[in-house]
Amino acid sequence: MSSPVTDSLILDRLKQLQITHPEIISHSPVKGSAEWSAELSTTAPNLSSVGLTKTLLFKPKTAKTATPTPVLVLAKESTETSSGAIGKLLELKELRLASEDLIKQVFPSAGSKDDVSALALPANPTIDENIHLILDQSLAQSQDQHALHLTASNTTILLKGQDIKSYFDSISKDNAVRLVDFAELKAATPAPSAPTAKPAAKAEVKPAAAQEDDEKYNMAIKYKKEEDFPGWYTDVLIKGQMLDYYDISGCYILRPWSYSIWQTIQTWFDDEIKKLGVQDCYFPMFVSNARLEKEKDHIEGFAPEVAWVTRAGKSELEEPIAIRPTSETVMYPYYAKWINSHRDLPLKLNQWNSVVRWEFKNPQPFLRTREFLWQEGHTAFLTKAEAAKEVMDILDLYRKVYTDLLAVPVIPGKKSENEKFAGGDYTTTVEGFIPTTGRGIQGATSHHLGQNFSKMFDISVESPNKDEGRLLAYQNSWGLSTRSLGVMVMVHGDDQGLVLPPRVALQQVVVVPVGLSKGEGKNQGIYDACLNLERELVKVGIRAKADLREGYTPGWKFNDWEMRGVPLRLELGPRDIAANTTLAVRRYDNHKSPMPLSDIGNTVRSYLDEIQKSMLDKAQEKFDSCLIPVTNWDDVVPTLDAKNILVLPWCEGSQCEDDIKERSKSQATKGQAEDNKAPSAGAKSLCIPFDQDRFGKFPEGENQKCIQCGEKAKSWTMFGRSDGWLVYEGTGTMSWAEGWYNR
Amino acid sequence: MSSPVTDSLILDRLKQLQITHPEIISHSPVKGSAEWSAELSTTAPNLSSVGLTKTLLFKPKTAKTATPTPVLVLAKESTETSSGAIGKLLELKELRLASEDLIKQVFPSAGSKDDVSALALPANPTIDENIHLILDQSLAQSQDQHALHLTASNTTILLKGQDIKSYFDSISKDNAVRLVDFAELKAATPAPSAPTAKPAAKAEVKPAAAQEDDEKYNMAIKYKKEEDFPGWYTDVLIKGQMLDYYDISGCYILRPWSYSIWQTIQTWFDDEIKKLGVQDCYFPMFVSNARLEKEKDHIEGFAPEVAWVTRAGKSELEEPIAIRPTSETVMYPYYAKWINSHRDLPLKLNQWNSVVRWEFKNPQPFLRTREFLWQEGHTAFLTKAEAAKEVMDILDLYRKVYTDLLAVPVIPGKKSENEKFAGGDYTTTVEGFIPTTGRGIQGATSHHLGQNFSKMFDISVESPNKDEGRLLAYQNSWGLSTRSLGVMVMVHGDDQGLVLPPRVALQQVVVVPVGLSKGEGKNQGIYDACLNLERELVKVGIRAKADLREGYTPGWKFNDWEMRGVPLRLELGPRDIAANTTLAVRRYDNHKSPMPLSDIGNTVRSYLDEIQKSMLDKAQEKFDSCLIPVTNWDDVVPTLDAKNILVLPWCEGSQCEDDIKERSKSQATKGQAEDNKAPSAGAKSLCIPFDQDRFGKFPEGENQKCIQCGEKAKSWTMFGRSDGWLVYEGTGTMSWAEGWYNR
Repeated sequence: MSSPVTDSLILDRLKQLQITHPEIISHSPVKGSAEWSAELSTTAPNLSSVGLTKTLLFKPKTAKTATPTPVLVLAKESTETSSGAIGKLLELKELRLASEDLIKQVFPSAGSKDDVSALALPANPTIDENIHLILDQSLAQSQDQHALHLTASNTTILLKGQDIKSYFDSISKDNAVRLVDFAELKAATPAPSAPTAKPAAKAEVKPAAAQEDDEKYNMAIKYKKEEDFPGWYTDVLIKGQMLDYYDISGCYILRPWSYSIWQTIQTWFDDEIKKLGVQDCYFPMFVSNARLEKEKDHIEGFAPEVAWVTRAGKSELEEPIAIRPTSETVMYPYYAKWINSHRDLPLKLNQWNSVVRWEFKNPQPFLRTREFLWQEGHTAFLTKAEAAKEVMDILDLYRKVYTDLLAVPVIPGKKSENEKFAGGDYTTTVEGFIPTTGRGIQGATSHHLGQNFSKMFDISVESPNKDEGRLLAYQNSWGLSTRSLGVMVMVHGDDQGLVLPPRVALQQVVVVPVGLSKGEGKNQGIYDACLNLERELVKVGIRAKADLREGYTPGWKFNDWEMRGVPLRLELGPRDIAANTTLAVRRYDNHKSPMPLSDIGNTVRSYLDEIQKSMLDKAQEKFDSCLIPVTNWDDVVPTLDAKNILVLPWCEGSQCEDDIKERSKSQATKGQAEDNKAPSAGAKSLCIPFDQDRFGKFPEGENQKCIQCGEKAKSWTMFGRSDGWLVYEGTGTMSWAEGWYNR
Repeated sequence: MSSPVTDSLILDRLKQLQITHPEIISHSPVKGSAEWSAELSTTAPNLSSVGLTKTLLFKPKTAKTATPTPVLVLAKESTETSSGAIGKLLELKELRLASEDLIKQVFPSAGSKDDVSALALPANPTIDENIHLILDQSLAQSQDQHALHLTASNTTILLKGQDIKSYFDSISKDNAVRLVDFAELKAATPAPSAPTAKPAAKAEVKPAAAQEDDEKYNMAIKYKKEEDFPGWYTDVLIKGQMLDYYDISGCYILRPWSYSIWQTIQTWFDDEIKKLGVQDCYFPMFVSNARLEKEKDHIEGFAPEVAWVTRAGKSELEEPIAIRPTSETVMYPYYAKWINSHRDLPLKLNQWNSVVRWEFKNPQPFLRTREFLWQEGHTAFLTKAEAAKEVMDILDLYRKVYTDLLAVPVIPGKKSENEKFAGGDYTTTVEGFIPTTGRGIQGATSHHLGQNFSKMFDISVESPNKDEGRLLAYQNSWGLSTRSLGVMVMVHGDDQGLVLPPRVALQQVVVVPVGLSKGEGKNQGIYDACLNLERELVKVGIRAKADLREGYTPGWKFNDWEMRGVPLRLELGPRDIAANTTLAVRRYDNHKSPMPLSDIGNTVRSYLDEIQKSMLDKAQEKFDSCLIPVTNWDDVVPTLDAKNILVLPWCEGSQCEDDIKERSKSQATKGQAEDNKAPSAGAKSLCIPFDQDRFGKFPEGENQKCIQCGEKAKSWTMFGRSDGWLVYEGTGTMSWAEGWYNR
């Protein structure tokens, strides 16, 4: 193959065509069009309306012995490019998006598929011998500037459509570049049916706004969950309207679709803790330097990520002021002030706020963001027993947030000595699991701080028994953050988009009219029936909405609401109305069943309950099937490689935990072919589950050996891979938000 | 009188006593002990436990012709110093706290009464001829260091009690300093009854913890609302446990007592706006410089008060990042992105968040704080009519927050052209009134922005009518902040402390056991009855609590709960139990009435409703009585001076508004003796009330003249004083939080 094409070479080629000084923008590397667009709007706001392009590399199916000729397509981002139609045009079979290997062959300089740019093609005579090049005709004929990458996704060049065509003509043989009118091509090819449109839908009206409709089909999720998990995750969040990118890296906009879920969690959890006697309050977001630095060990963990305000208006502040990364040093001095008598205990305060940690690592929506929303509870008790009870009460509420609201299974347990919050006595956690990556994820933590902080801040009272002198309070702290929303999306979402559990979905049911007729006014009866159905549902407290938008086909609407994860779709057409039924389609498994319209409110309500339960059961089953008790070391790495969580008989020793990590890491280089980003991840402890019996009989007597050191094992402990995408260094789990304690 | 005593002179005097290098701390000026203590804990955290002192100057009643000899008392802050007992001791009549004039005579260097320090007394032979000096014996005999001011409230010196005595001995004639044992003095004097204790209470047990009890009596509100409104306000908030001072100036801790009120407002308002189709979301707290500066006019108003993050960990940021002072420039770029089709309208978003404005003026709890909580609604519509309707819908919700939740009367109206949000088309407001200061206060504002921002940010859609081209959206914005809590406190609070309306009180009812007997176990029956009563109330949804704390007298408890503003106290003793009644005492007017215990839940529920209504009625009556229609210019200044709001026939002209301000200012120097801090305040427009009829028949024909220019008047318009304490420059009203728009 030829040597890599550089940015300079591309610019030289352009220069020879008299295209000089094209606009070039440097920015952060981007994945997909949403990020690209966001980056451009940040770095060059004036270009926010410039058209994006996409470069697609396909591999046709060939006999095993033959060398396939790849197909490169450069088109407007908005053009619908059907691989089926292209294959047909070129008389090639089953075009599939190219593997990383093939990408590397064609574009040696590309670090990943995100860097693929048609501009970086090697020169003549490669084209049309080694590769087919297809250019979107509407792009090639455009006088408008369009955005392309140079040789990597962190650089954007703006070129007129016509200049792009000239460029490819200049580096290929005559007529080697094929111009394709994709709209025409599509018209000439039998259209693939909309992902979930029923056959009946085809007979329906294609509205006047057909072109818009076609464009919107491109809004479907572009990545497969199993193939490109990070790309899928971002795409699902943005297209599902959970969030939007923001022009400050690491900050995201929580749109109503996600914020409403957080509000549901807030309302439920706040009610529950109030029953426990916890009161809400609000402490300032600012912390003075002196306070922050009071406890050196405490600050050490997060000092590198504290954001500092140093200026107000044009005045430099005398002392820089920190934005709280958490509120221990903010709150505890006042606990010392307020708590004087044993009558002042217990003191149980909670606040719902945002905290800031200026991470320099790659941000991830919900999981690692520079500002995030959470609740932090801080309580103080006269006795250790009361505090210990509360730790478990709160942990159980966290479990219920996950299982009962988000339909996400978690396992409550205790953190190992290595993994606990260093400032406390012990840490309890609810541990989740992302099947796609095979990794554990910390859901929320409830810490018993013992008297460590009360000693430090002098939170003490006269003993009620006069002769005991002063007693230090026993303290807890506990937190749950918006990362829980990210976990929910990762567990339930699928290739069609979000899948929301009914209990937290802002919209639980969408009613879609089907079987519409052409001609104005003809569908009023169906629309009325849909509105009536909506009313019936709303009346019994179901969050339902009829989608009567004109200009969209039912198929488009199905797709749209699937992408947004609405738990239940009710279709209503003339035949349904005649039969006094509606077709109910469950989002999470696409199961379809007719449902009588009489008493529809109650029917749907129990159906939603059933869906909620089934989603949890399904996820629970998957989690359970991936919790593998292993007593033989030889099974450790293969079990990890198969995306499982290990359940090991373990002595609970710190050194032994380090050894397990090292040993599994050194043996783990082979089996990782499918997960390049974590080539040598070792296993760390996730938690020691409180329910030990779920893993069956604990080995006894002679067999009761720690899998690593051979000493007597104390418990079944969950171990799993930790680093790699979506997982952070140093903690063993995705423990950023609450788990920063653990560092 | 002698010349002022300086700090150096005081230090010289000490030096002559061999007291060298005493610890001296500089800090911000303080009012009262709460602030002093807060300042010390900030500037010298190691001294947080040092005892404070208080210096009190009294004037005895004398014949008009005689010159009174003032009495100066220096005591521990915690010592109960009864002026009655002192008077008795010195055989003087009716000691009253000295006026500012007398203070200036004795302490010429004191800027205000906060600067009064006994150390600054002129030297021998003044003492005991011109002044009586009384020293708290427990202070004089103490080896501990105590805090005193030097010659002003911004300096603290630490001296041992015995050194303090030496100091005064050195500057006075022999035995001129009187040592007083206040505890003994009190015992020898008939004790004044607890503020609201019934006579019966005297017969009750004085518990073992009597000393603690006495100390706690000192916790009563120290300022009179009418005499020292700012001092009273701060004292009520802190002792009522609404908030606490924080070690960063201008930031306050919202304790559960106040935060729960905010949550009640949140819950109610959020429900209401959701009915209007508004959705909640969360935008990041950070704004990039580029975004903030996009709209020059917009930023100009608040640029001097923007807090800037310039550093994260040890890294300087490439670009400083602002903390949002409000979210227009944060949100509207995304509105432009999300709104493409007329189908995307209306877009109605709201967020509950905190914003930061780094004010350099004197901060005031709730009213002017550097971080505050609010909601900001931002909506966009296809038509002006829809937007205009929403402006009024929201304003009516704001009205209800004040009247229905906080029992605070407000008047809805429109702002004048001078006072409206400059960036919008028009501003509507609910205007409140603080009778104690006679000033208007802006409650919340709902703005119609017209197309000003949509033009700026290109928030536009294709018209549904094809030939109209693109249409700019019509926008509104509206905000309500925690300042509403401050208004509530100022309107309802009294000399005993907070007075909370039942609907928002975290605790609506306190049950207090009375008529207790000596001896352990004897009162179990009463306690049980109290708990039972609590249960009955809680059962029907009333937030009630029985106060069974041991070691406190009923009188102490009455005082405690009065200070905290609990709307209803139910007393329960043996006689009540025998009669199957409870004595109900209303906080807001101290009205007492027995209440049958049968069906007590329902009785109390309607009683609380009645209290809620009466509190509003009472405040409304006061407001109404201070709204004075004035048609003759000669009445303008006297009406203002009598702490009223003017209702003027006005032409609504901007120049005329300026003229009214100037004219009322220049005439206003005379009548302001009692309000030194606002010696020359002019009147500005507060709002043009929507309900014009409430002020009676509008002058007609010849008489329909603008009070200032004589041209034809358009409306009755409310005008009032604006500057001075608790009111901010430039806005005409206390319009900081929402009203910063108006600048």
